[in-house]
Amino acid sequence: MSAHSTAMTPPNRLTALQALRAMEEGRLTSEALTRACLERIAERNGAVQAFTAVDPGRALAQARAADRAAAAPLRGLPFAVKDVLDTRDLATAYGSPIYAGHQPVADAACVARAREFGALVLGKVATSEFATQTPSQTRNPLDLAHTPGGSSSGSAAAVADFMAPVAFGTQTTASTVRPASYCGIVGYKPTFGFLNVAGLKPLSPSQDTVTLLARTVEDAALCGFGLQGVRAQAQPLERPRLALCLSSQWDAVHPEMAQAIESLAAAAQRAGAEVRRLWLPAGLEALIDLQGRLFAFEARQSLAHERQHHAAQFSPRLQARLAGGEGIDGAEYLAMRQRALAGRQALARLFDGVDALLYPPAQGEADEGIADSGSAQFGALWSLMHVPCVCVPAARGPRGLPMGVQVIGAYGDDLRTLQAAAFVERVAQAALA
Amino acid sequence: MSAHSTAMTPPNRLTALQALRAMEEGRLTSEALTRACLERIAERNGAVQAFTAVDPGRALAQARAADRAAAAPLRGLPFAVKDVLDTRDLATAYGSPIYAGHQPVADAACVARAREFGALVLGKVATSEFATQTPSQTRNPLDLAHTPGGSSSGSAAAVADFMAPVAFGTQTTASTVRPASYCGIVGYKPTFGFLNVAGLKPLSPSQDTVTLLARTVEDAALCGFGLQGVRAQAQPLERPRLALCLSSQWDAVHPEMAQAIESLAAAAQRAGAEVRRLWLPAGLEALIDLQGRLFAFEARQSLAHERQHHAAQFSPRLQARLAGGEGIDGAEYLAMRQRALAGRQALARLFDGVDALLYPPAQGEADEGIADSGSAQFGALWSLMHVPCVCVPAARGPRGLPMGVQVIGAYGDDLRTLQAAAFVERVAQAALA
Repeated sequence: MSAHSTAMTPPNRLTALQALRAMEEGRLTSEALTRACLERIAERNGAVQAFTAVDPGRALAQARAADRAAAAPLRGLPFAVKDVLDTRDLATAYGSPIYAGHQPVADAACVARAREFGALVLGKVATSEFATQTPSQTRNPLDLAHTPGGSSSGSAAAVADFMAPVAFGTQTTASTVRPASYCGIVGYKPTFGFLNVAGLKPLSPSQDTVTLLARTVEDAALCGFGLQGVRAQAQPLERPRLALCLSSQWDAVHPEMAQAIESLAAAAQRAGAEVRRLWLPAGLEALIDLQGRLFAFEARQSLAHERQHHAAQFSPRLQARLAGGEGIDGAEYLAMRQRALAGRQALARLFDGVDALLYPPAQGEADEGIADSGSAQFGALWSLMHVPCVCVPAARGPRGLPMGVQVIGAYGDDLRTLQAAAFVERVAQAALA
Repeated sequence: MSAHSTAMTPPNRLTALQALRAMEEGRLTSEALTRACLERIAERNGAVQAFTAVDPGRALAQARAADRAAAAPLRGLPFAVKDVLDTRDLATAYGSPIYAGHQPVADAACVARAREFGALVLGKVATSEFATQTPSQTRNPLDLAHTPGGSSSGSAAAVADFMAPVAFGTQTTASTVRPASYCGIVGYKPTFGFLNVAGLKPLSPSQDTVTLLARTVEDAALCGFGLQGVRAQAQPLERPRLALCLSSQWDAVHPEMAQAIESLAAAAQRAGAEVRRLWLPAGLEALIDLQGRLFAFEARQSLAHERQHHAAQFSPRLQARLAGGEGIDGAEYLAMRQRALAGRQALARLFDGVDALLYPPAQGEADEGIADSGSAQFGALWSLMHVPCVCVPAARGPRGLPMGVQVIGAYGDDLRTLQAAAFVERVAQAALA
């Protein structure tokens, strides 16, 4: 986008990279950007219910301080922060009445790192209960009658609705890729542990991952690596080697999603990608079911204190889920962990000669209503395998709502995965235009 | 031990299993056991400085409640809890003046699980600063002029000095196996994640492990699996297949430690074990140095909030360590993680036909003074590899202080590792007698 068109765009509609450049070139201040985001929140949050805590005075004070500060990779960028991540100046309730009004004493590591590199906290955004299935009150900003997906519901809605250029989310099963798909934005789940989890309320610690939601792949790369102090660029790979990954899960995919991914794969091939098909090996198929059982065991332990003292304030859905973990003993848990480790080794071999896999992030478009945030099954294996996943907007469904595609890379190959995702994004945008 | 000799032993000197059996048979109450521990603390803690927070009234009230409660795997057992683990009724300072008097709102998951299965919290025990190298004021109870090792200094000293039958510790490099070795007790670092880390102050989240310190291998198994609601028994393996694992690190081992492990291996062979020698493959050797760099990167992030707001209250040693992580970028970090994952695969092959490896847990006996808690190098690889390690008392050094041996098992094979360790413990006890 040219400087001219950037100048015409309201600040809250700029991508993070556009805003950063405009600030670096003196055409925009962090204060003006933050004010535009706050105005959008004031205008839209009553309907969308993405933000759960905003302190405009504090956000603007941080923005003015950023405007006075020296250059830094994320200087002046306002982040929305999912409410399972601790913030020392905004209440943090983990999506549960048990913690209503709770005020942590320290920032989560990712929040502290964002501040360290010049970013500011715009506010806290909704999460489903402890990042499990029971949804928040957030609505899909593209159609308020529909779910935004979960558990990073507020993160996805805030970014999709131009309230914030970027948001921290988390993912344990599909909590970032599915809301990104439903809201038509980019969701980036890094390699497990790439963004430090200190100050994240644990749910299933062997899978919990801090994530980013943004409006472009380039923004996801900018923020993911910016949190390490590096200005990374995710230039699209020239000729990515992609594999459309087939599995038994495709039986649950709605026809429009299957068709969207097939069309995208064909368009990618026309645009220069090498595209093959591969079937998920049976050993990895078997891990899909294991993921939920491992999750239940760990969540039951992570929430042991709340289960003992505040169980009446759990939703019935969460109570049932935790009860499901009761019958799993330590020996079975260790055996599941052994199988997961072996699976990571088997999965590595799928990436011989392949830069990234294409896979559905959800069954199809967002469902109607907000009582349910949709099936998380399409994230299960990849979360358990710890590999980087980038959900990229791919198509529109029959109701006109967006559908994304997951671009999945090898363990630790985050930059290459983002570069492959940038290629897919360019192809999809051309097809959508 | 017979019922008669148990009856003669002061309750605080019973092993956890002896105490549990005596309580189950009505020969002992949790109140009497807890009172004996509190009396020992009152008598000795001024010199040893293991406990940092004790509330005798609350501990006794929990014990009386346990005496009234139904049978449970850990009913009535008093646990000491390392002060990097949150407790909702005792201050939790993470070994840092930054958090002096800090009161968490919830119990760590391991603490909540201990309570769930009938155990009680006796008190909090000292940790080095945020579980890093700067030691606590704790002294080695076997010789107060010597270090107890760290970072689980209070946990090891409390158990070794009969103040508590069992303690929660943590390990990120060698923070459990080394103090166990120095204090002549058993330290059990489970497979990474076996004990849930919710409520543990993160340091290096890809390695931080909740651990147990106890006076016998059987107690370590009882508590480790008891926290999953199971009464596991670690009967010694009949004919364990052991491998004395050699590496370049042996150049740093003091002669008395090398000799103790050689003697133990020979005694194990005489007692029926199959014992071989194996050299650590070069690829795994190379990971030893990587561990410290990965640690520094993660610790710098985990403590980002404290670094920004309270750095003046860091020890100079911690400041230097965190500064060392500054030059590592995200790409290098991801490459280190990839190498660690590949290392876990390579390590698995070492266990073909081998039940457990024998390896030094420390250079030798505990050093004099408490300004330094000794080198952590012998834990680095095994912590990074996520495998279970059990430190078992093996011999006495020239000063009469204890030295242990690490018994290291395959990922997820915790019970077998404990069973191999129980064999080693029996052999060592016979040799020491």
